[in-house]
Amino acid sequence: MHGHRHTIHKDHIHHGWNNAFAPCLKIAPGEVVHFETVDASSGQLSRTSTEADLAKLDLAFVNPVTGPIFVDGAKPGDALKISILSFSPSGWGWTGNIPGFGLLADQFPDAKLHHWNYDPGLKPAMYGPGGKVPLRPFAGTIGVAPAAPGLHSIVPPRNVGGNMDVRDLFAGVELYLPIEVDGALFSVGDTHAAQGDGEVCGTAIESPIDVVLKIDVVKGANLRMPRYVTPGPVSDHFDKAGYEVTTGIGADLMAGARMAVSEMIELLCRRFGYSAIDAYMLCSVCADLRISSIVDVPNWVVSFYFPRIVLE
Amino acid sequence: MHGHRHTIHKDHIHHGWNNAFAPCLKIAPGEVVHFETVDASSGQLSRTSTEADLAKLDLAFVNPVTGPIFVDGAKPGDALKISILSFSPSGWGWTGNIPGFGLLADQFPDAKLHHWNYDPGLKPAMYGPGGKVPLRPFAGTIGVAPAAPGLHSIVPPRNVGGNMDVRDLFAGVELYLPIEVDGALFSVGDTHAAQGDGEVCGTAIESPIDVVLKIDVVKGANLRMPRYVTPGPVSDHFDKAGYEVTTGIGADLMAGARMAVSEMIELLCRRFGYSAIDAYMLCSVCADLRISSIVDVPNWVVSFYFPRIVLE
Repeated sequence: MHGHRHTIHKDHIHHGWNNAFAPCLKIAPGEVVHFETVDASSGQLSRTSTEADLAKLDLAFVNPVTGPIFVDGAKPGDALKISILSFSPSGWGWTGNIPGFGLLADQFPDAKLHHWNYDPGLKPAMYGPGGKVPLRPFAGTIGVAPAAPGLHSIVPPRNVGGNMDVRDLFAGVELYLPIEVDGALFSVGDTHAAQGDGEVCGTAIESPIDVVLKIDVVKGANLRMPRYVTPGPVSDHFDKAGYEVTTGIGADLMAGARMAVSEMIELLCRRFGYSAIDAYMLCSVCADLRISSIVDVPNWVVSFYFPRIVLE
Repeated sequence: MHGHRHTIHKDHIHHGWNNAFAPCLKIAPGEVVHFETVDASSGQLSRTSTEADLAKLDLAFVNPVTGPIFVDGAKPGDALKISILSFSPSGWGWTGNIPGFGLLADQFPDAKLHHWNYDPGLKPAMYGPGGKVPLRPFAGTIGVAPAAPGLHSIVPPRNVGGNMDVRDLFAGVELYLPIEVDGALFSVGDTHAAQGDGEVCGTAIESPIDVVLKIDVVKGANLRMPRYVTPGPVSDHFDKAGYEVTTGIGADLMAGARMAVSEMIELLCRRFGYSAIDAYMLCSVCADLRISSIVDVPNWVVSFYFPRIVLE
C-alpha cells in the first residue's frame, strides 16, 4: 500500500466546494495519503439499481469528494503538486444517461443505466454484444477550494480544478493545481474505471476506487490553470487496432462536437447493431473528442475517435 | 511507385472549389493516381524567402490543389473512398506566422518564417535549440466539389472535405467523403510534413509532397460529413516520452483552446528559453488540442498536449 502515512475514510466526504469547510486532515508537503472514495451517485445507486432509481437521483448529492486536506505552508500563488500513485478498483461500476445531462441530452431524454462488473485486475470490460472496453482508472474530480466564499456547485470544473473529468490523470501522472486559499484544501473523488475524452453522455464507468496520492507544494508557481505531465503515451490502451473517426465541420466547436458524436452513434448502430442509447453510452466510456483544425476561418473540424479494439 | 496508372502534374492546380472547373482526368472507380503537389504558398515562397516575402503573400493563391478528377459513376449521395497509399517528401518546407491568421492572431501580429530542411527519409526535423519534431506526412486539403454553384474559397473546410487539416490522414488511412456532384470532382494538395491537432499558428510544415491515392466509390452511402479509418495508433510518433499538458477551463471551447495554447507557450518559453513566437510555431507542428470534458455544465476542459520527445 505504498507506505502511505494517512488514510481518509469515506465518511469524510463533502458536496460542493467551500473554503469554510473544516479540514479532516493536516499534512506536511510531500506526504502520501490514501483516500477512500464513494461513487459519483454518493451511494444512491448500487449493484441492484434500476433506471427508475437513476431517474430519481438527487443531484444535490452527486460527485462527493473525500477531504478536504490542509497542506502546511501552502499559500495562494503556490501550486499544489499531486503525484498520482495508484488506484484500487472495486470491480463494480455504472454508466448512466441522466435526463437533461450530457452532450446530446436533447436527443436522449430517457434514463438508462448500465452496470459493469469488471475484473479488478483491469481486463477489458464487456459491453453488450462483442464490446470490450479497455480500463484505466482515474479520478474525475480532483481540486482545491476556490478563493470566492460560499458554497460552489461540484459540477463545473474551474481554474482550481475540480470536476475536470480528464481521463489522462492516471497512475504515474503529475498534476499541478493553482492554490487560492491557505492550506490549499484539497479533495478528490468521482473515480472512473474508464472514460473517453469528452465523457459525452455525461457519465463514465462510475466506480468506487480508492486512490493514493503524494501531495506537495511548489512555491510561487503562479499558475492560471491546471497542468499535468504524463510519463508516456496516453491512448495506448485504446489505439492498437486504430480508430473509426467521424467529423463535425462548421463555425462552432460545440456544434461540431455534437455532429461528430451523432455521426459515430449512427455508424455504431448501422455497423454493429447497437441501439442509439447504447452506442452513445459506449462512446462516453472509450471514444475521444479532438480538435483537428481550428484556424481555417470560418470553419473548424472536431473529430471523434472510436477505438476499433473495443469491437474486434 | 505502386503501379499507379495515372499521374497528374503540378501544372494542373486550381485555386478554390468550383463544380464548373473542367476535370483534368477521368478515371474508373478503383484506379490509382499519383498527384504532384505545390506547397501551400503556390510557389510564392521558396528556400530563400524571408519574412518580407511571407508578409506580402497573395492569399488569393494559397492552398492550390491538384485536380479535379472525374470519377466515372460517382453520383450525389455516394461516398468517395480514398485509400491513402503513399507520400514522397521533398525535404524542404516552411512554417509561417501569417499576420491576421492563426488561433492567437491578436497576440502575434508580425510575420515570422521558419525554413525546414528535413530528411526525406523522415528522421525528426530540428527546430531551434534542441527541438526534434517527428514527421508524418499528410494532405491538409483533400476534397470534392460542393453542389453549390460558383467559386468557393479554399480556406474553410466543408461537409465535402477540403482544407480539413486533419493530421491523421496519413499513409494507410481510408477516407470517405460525401459526393455532391456527378463525377465527384476530387482534388488534393496543401501537403504537410508534420502537424499537431489544431494547427494552432495557422500553418504546419508546409512542404511539396507527392501523393499516391486509390480512389473508389461507395454507392448510396449518404454521408453527412467526412469519415476515416486508421489502421493503428495515430499519435505513436509523438507519444513515447509522454506529454506536457496545459488546460483551458471555461464556458466556451474556443476561449478554452486559446487559453490552453497560451499556457503552453508560457511553459515552453520559461522552461526551454524559446521566444513566444517560436514556441507558438513549434506547437503548431507537434502539439494536440483535445476536448477532455464537454458535459460538466457550464464549463468545459480543453487540453493541449505537447509531446516531450520533441525536447528530450
